[in-house]
Amino acid sequence: MKPGSTVAIVGVGLIGGSAGMAVRERLPKVRVIGIGRNRNRLNKALKLGAVDQITTSWEQGVADADLVIVCTPVGQIVNHVRKLAEFCKPGAVITDAGSTKQTIVRGLSKGLPSGISFVGSHPMAGSDKSGVQFADASLYEDRTVVVTPIAATSDSARKIVKRFWKRIGAKVIELKPAEHDRAVAMISHLPHVVSSVLSSGVNDDQLKLASTGWKDTTRIAAADPDLWLQIFAENKNDVLRCIDSYMKKLDKFRQALETDNQRIMLRYLETGKQNRDALGS
Amino acid sequence: MKPGSTVAIVGVGLIGGSAGMAVRERLPKVRVIGIGRNRNRLNKALKLGAVDQITTSWEQGVADADLVIVCTPVGQIVNHVRKLAEFCKPGAVITDAGSTKQTIVRGLSKGLPSGISFVGSHPMAGSDKSGVQFADASLYEDRTVVVTPIAATSDSARKIVKRFWKRIGAKVIELKPAEHDRAVAMISHLPHVVSSVLSSGVNDDQLKLASTGWKDTTRIAAADPDLWLQIFAENKNDVLRCIDSYMKKLDKFRQALETDNQRIMLRYLETGKQNRDALGS
Repeated sequence: MKPGSTVAIVGVGLIGGSAGMAVRERLPKVRVIGIGRNRNRLNKALKLGAVDQITTSWEQGVADADLVIVCTPVGQIVNHVRKLAEFCKPGAVITDAGSTKQTIVRGLSKGLPSGISFVGSHPMAGSDKSGVQFADASLYEDRTVVVTPIAATSDSARKIVKRFWKRIGAKVIELKPAEHDRAVAMISHLPHVVSSVLSSGVNDDQLKLASTGWKDTTRIAAADPDLWLQIFAENKNDVLRCIDSYMKKLDKFRQALETDNQRIMLRYLETGKQNRDALGS
Repeated sequence: MKPGSTVAIVGVGLIGGSAGMAVRERLPKVRVIGIGRNRNRLNKALKLGAVDQITTSWEQGVADADLVIVCTPVGQIVNHVRKLAEFCKPGAVITDAGSTKQTIVRGLSKGLPSGISFVGSHPMAGSDKSGVQFADASLYEDRTVVVTPIAATSDSARKIVKRFWKRIGAKVIELKPAEHDRAVAMISHLPHVVSSVLSSGVNDDQLKLASTGWKDTTRIAAADPDLWLQIFAENKNDVLRCIDSYMKKLDKFRQALETDNQRIMLRYLETGKQNRDALGS
């Protein structure tokens, strides 16, 4: 991002708004344009300092953009990128922040106007909250962003996207789209299923006894159900495999409890503790 | 707790130490005696201001106590209360902080020396951390403590225990031991199984992508495995029932995902969100 260049952010909520704030804080000579459908929300983003300019016109919004970051819901990203690409100037690079990558990257692997590149991104940062009011310039600091180029991806576009995330504080790793989807199915999508189903199963009397343990374990169940429906649909096969493998483990733990096999129970508890301790608090 | 009275805390870790700190802050005229096996840990508790006096002698420690709070691991509470009761003065009341109640309350429903009462307690507060270094005078503020008297429990002992928890900031509710165990199996023990098994299933490459979602959902997996083995053993049947019901729900969600039944998936996600939202952040 050279001084004087322009970043357009499509969808200025928690993820897009935080990216905008981080650019404005760390790269003050880069112009940030916020693009959305809802003028009230755009005004809020402007007021909160997430962007320099706002527009509801995709055409005007991306006309001068060197980098476009598409932060719309995962099920719409392919269509949005296709539409935005028509308005971009030659040399523009488009990336996204979607939680799945195979469907998106495959859907955009050809057919974009010549001179326009797409490189998939997934910042491993977020919240059960949504909306620009929760945006935070430090959201990406020391967080991992997965970038998923494919063979056809131009080297310069790949570098531009990786550099962008690094410049706003993130650690970047590259994965193939399929590798990404398998890994996040386990580390992000399965936890969401597990947490939501857990939270769905309690009654009011039990809820009165909820302490920090239940609250932590179910925190992500407060996230937007429609958004997660899309994520599950896009990564269906990997998520199904993860649920199956999880249920097998849960059943083994259950058998161990039923038969008083403390050795097996302890193996799960200790491995779980080791993995969790490895991440810190 | 009248001015000049004495509380003895057996096991001065996170739970016992926080109770001691809260008494010293809120009831400065009550003396707090910390009892334990390990002199180093007792000295740490004294230095941190969790207790007024320390001793490794159970006999000396409880000799003057009006209230004894047994904060030792759940599998040992029955034996510890029996042993401590022999050294208590007539009129002394003993309570505990164990995570299960039926086994403990049944085990202590008779055979205590006359004039010594036991009333079960379970403060719904805690942490994945253990040790007095994490103790906090405000741990019980606005937290729920379940007190589990039975028909044989003397009314005055029940009132003394309830008043004690209220005086250190907690909300107190009464449940029958069996009701308590059923409720906490769902709201505390099942989440621990779910979280530990989830955490046990990831590999290092996946862990690199872990964000706040995984961290929240698995936080309690960092707790002490041996302590939790005891809790599961003491509440085995209720925990088994909860795992079964959870696995049924998880399987229904899985079927819905496989058959693209968004209506069913949405029902789980929305109920989960409602329950979680009801508790706040």
